[in-house]
Amino acid sequence: MSVAAATSKGAATRETILDHAYAIACSAGLEGLSIGALAHAVGMSKSGVFAHFGSREDLQLAVLEDAAQRFVAHVFHPALRQPRGLARLRTIIEQWFDWVRHEDDGGCLFLAAVSEYDDRPGPQRDQLLQQDRQWRQALAHAVSLAIDAGELRADTDVEQLVFEIYALPLLVHHDAGLYGFDVAQARGLRAYERLIHTSAPH
Amino acid sequence: MSVAAATSKGAATRETILDHAYAIACSAGLEGLSIGALAHAVGMSKSGVFAHFGSREDLQLAVLEDAAQRFVAHVFHPALRQPRGLARLRTIIEQWFDWVRHEDDGGCLFLAAVSEYDDRPGPQRDQLLQQDRQWRQALAHAVSLAIDAGELRADTDVEQLVFEIYALPLLVHHDAGLYGFDVAQARGLRAYERLIHTSAPH
Repeated sequence: MSVAAATSKGAATRETILDHAYAIACSAGLEGLSIGALAHAVGMSKSGVFAHFGSREDLQLAVLEDAAQRFVAHVFHPALRQPRGLARLRTIIEQWFDWVRHEDDGGCLFLAAVSEYDDRPGPQRDQLLQQDRQWRQALAHAVSLAIDAGELRADTDVEQLVFEIYALPLLVHHDAGLYGFDVAQARGLRAYERLIHTSAPH
Repeated sequence: MSVAAATSKGAATRETILDHAYAIACSAGLEGLSIGALAHAVGMSKSGVFAHFGSREDLQLAVLEDAAQRFVAHVFHPALRQPRGLARLRTIIEQWFDWVRHEDDGGCLFLAAVSEYDDRPGPQRDQLLQQDRQWRQALAHAVSLAIDAGELRADTDVEQLVFEIYALPLLVHHDAGLYGFDVAQARGLRAYERLIHTSAPH
């Protein structure tokens, strides 16, 4: 086997392990990940899994990174196909609500991870915090573009608006589990529209 | 021992068990409650615990009920000492934010329970849903009193405003874990004030 083929096979195996790890973490949390159970799920030996992820912590960080990539692909990439400004921001919100709907169990991973690690200093918490900051920066940028486009007032407090937007998918996620996604989504969209309306130019 | 004394002793023991169970559920979730570990923590036999709670499910339901009483005592009772209207509503919000601050680890129990049971039909989910409905009704009532007092517009969509208020402590809880309570609380209060401002009479 050529070096390139071996590398490519290694990358594919890593991806397979990661897919299984992601699925386990979605239901059991990142702390519910064990190399033993994962090896069994993938049909490999524990040492085979360890060859790709040096430790359980490495694996947890890789799953978090993988989850972030899935989130960006689901929520942000479709928005980039919309024109800058409110059209793009609205697509972000719609896709974010869609991400937290319970049919797609990926929605829970970040919230579960925050409650697992927010009071436990360490690399997992550092990475979560960094990912959360990056996401807020991306939202802040999207809001700024809407201000530049004249669709939101120039004196809009960008970070505060990002905070108020961020609250909505959290509650849509919460309510979707209790009252069903459609009701929660409809209320979330109305709340978003009201938020935007109060920041619109006079 | 008289029947009254025995009953009172039984009630005190039940309360002790419940206190320990509440503490365990706060860190490990209601699904993390085991009668064995609980009996060990209280210094009783498993059958002693079973004498007070017929099953693990009974215990979980009792802990949920206990958590609801703690929540009402912390969030709602102080508000009832305020005059009806925005003064009372604001106290509810401030106390609710305080409830989700991470120094008091009780804040996590309901959110953890929602994620444990929202996709698992059964008595725990039914009770969570009933408790959530009752809380929204109490919030709706508090909002209605502010409308009656002329402090919020008569055409306020009460349920929608309750939804938008509810989103804030969720995010304060989330952000307190990542960025610290004080920052999260300050943003939460500003968001609340903006919400109320947009519903104020012209």
